[in-house]
Amino acid sequence: MKDYTIVSNAVIKRLPRYRRILKDLLKKKVNVISSNGLGGLINFTASQVRQDLNNFGTFGLQGYGYNVEKLYNQINTILGLENTYKMVIVGTGNLGQAIANYTRFYKSGFQVVALFEVNPKLIGLKINDIEVIDFNEIDKYLSKNQIDIGIITTNKDSAQAVADKLAKGGVKGIWNFAAADLNIPDNIAVENVHLSDSLRLLAYHINQNDLRVEEKISS
Amino acid sequence: MKDYTIVSNAVIKRLPRYRRILKDLLKKKVNVISSNGLGGLINFTASQVRQDLNNFGTFGLQGYGYNVEKLYNQINTILGLENTYKMVIVGTGNLGQAIANYTRFYKSGFQVVALFEVNPKLIGLKINDIEVIDFNEIDKYLSKNQIDIGIITTNKDSAQAVADKLAKGGVKGIWNFAAADLNIPDNIAVENVHLSDSLRLLAYHINQNDLRVEEKISS
Repeated sequence: MKDYTIVSNAVIKRLPRYRRILKDLLKKKVNVISSNGLGGLINFTASQVRQDLNNFGTFGLQGYGYNVEKLYNQINTILGLENTYKMVIVGTGNLGQAIANYTRFYKSGFQVVALFEVNPKLIGLKINDIEVIDFNEIDKYLSKNQIDIGIITTNKDSAQAVADKLAKGGVKGIWNFAAADLNIPDNIAVENVHLSDSLRLLAYHINQNDLRVEEKISS
Repeated sequence: MKDYTIVSNAVIKRLPRYRRILKDLLKKKVNVISSNGLGGLINFTASQVRQDLNNFGTFGLQGYGYNVEKLYNQINTILGLENTYKMVIVGTGNLGQAIANYTRFYKSGFQVVALFEVNPKLIGLKINDIEVIDFNEIDKYLSKNQIDIGIITTNKDSAQAVADKLAKGGVKGIWNFAAADLNIPDNIAVENVHLSDSLRLLAYHINQNDLRVEEKISS
């Protein structure tokens, strides 16, 4: 696999979106698409599409377009989606359960193999056939099982302590849903999903829209 | 409220994070913080902090620092968090339930007032005291109730049809969790939370880290 660390984060962040659109095209038996056509679907200009994809080699043929299947496979390779990932979830609240039950992840190679919880009422139960284990056992569990991704769905006050245990236990990545910015060693990848931040940004954009309407009315 | 539409999206996106850190400082009774100190907490340089916050007027005093409470309140105002928002959720799977049960949203003025579902087994139930209503009733419901935000937690194939109904029903914003890019009129704000995209980005970063380790070993 090639080292794409020189490719800008902005471009990388767009790849899952390209991938989703290409997957839909494959389902619809579309074999070839122009940068113009792809741009229309992803809401970019043709030139931005070409610029994005040029980062990863020459996918397209001038005057012909992109081979949808090849481009889709290549993006999967770039994203590392040919591998499988073993994951544990810490916290079995609604969000933890939602992720444990989200079967689409399994199909794409992301497998939840254990859930960890401090609430004794939940320990020993199974969620989507996955056992809920006492959080006090996590060190032992991680020393015996090679886990790739740790998912944190605890409250924000517990999140750093959980992250420390996951890091010590050798996970390669942390998917963090707690409203906290974690301190994690550089060799461990982190993706944050801060739901509250996202909702607050939505509120901001709603207010900016309201304002534009008021301006139009008063002018 | 001022029009901040000229402020770049990148700066706006950082505001909820500033807000979170300032809230923690308030709890810890910190009254004043330097741009250097704030930068350290948010992982930015002091100069980037000053540049970000200068977009919204002069918060800081040279050689003194930022008044934490004032800055926190000002960011709340900018984000529109002094208002309250009535929300409906379409889809009562695990994710819909997780959001309905997330009581912290209520405290910050975001109230879920109804859940919509197509599954007859769930219609009529209550989740966190919120009634689950037949999705076929949504037009009527929205015509009678002023709803600010529609939350989509359906599968991606239903998402556009749901968004159309929400838009027709007069919501001001859509919080979309479906793995679909929606076509929505410009006057409606949209925030997407594409969980699968986020997990795929995590996979990418894990693979890039693995590669760097391999390179170190082989060099």
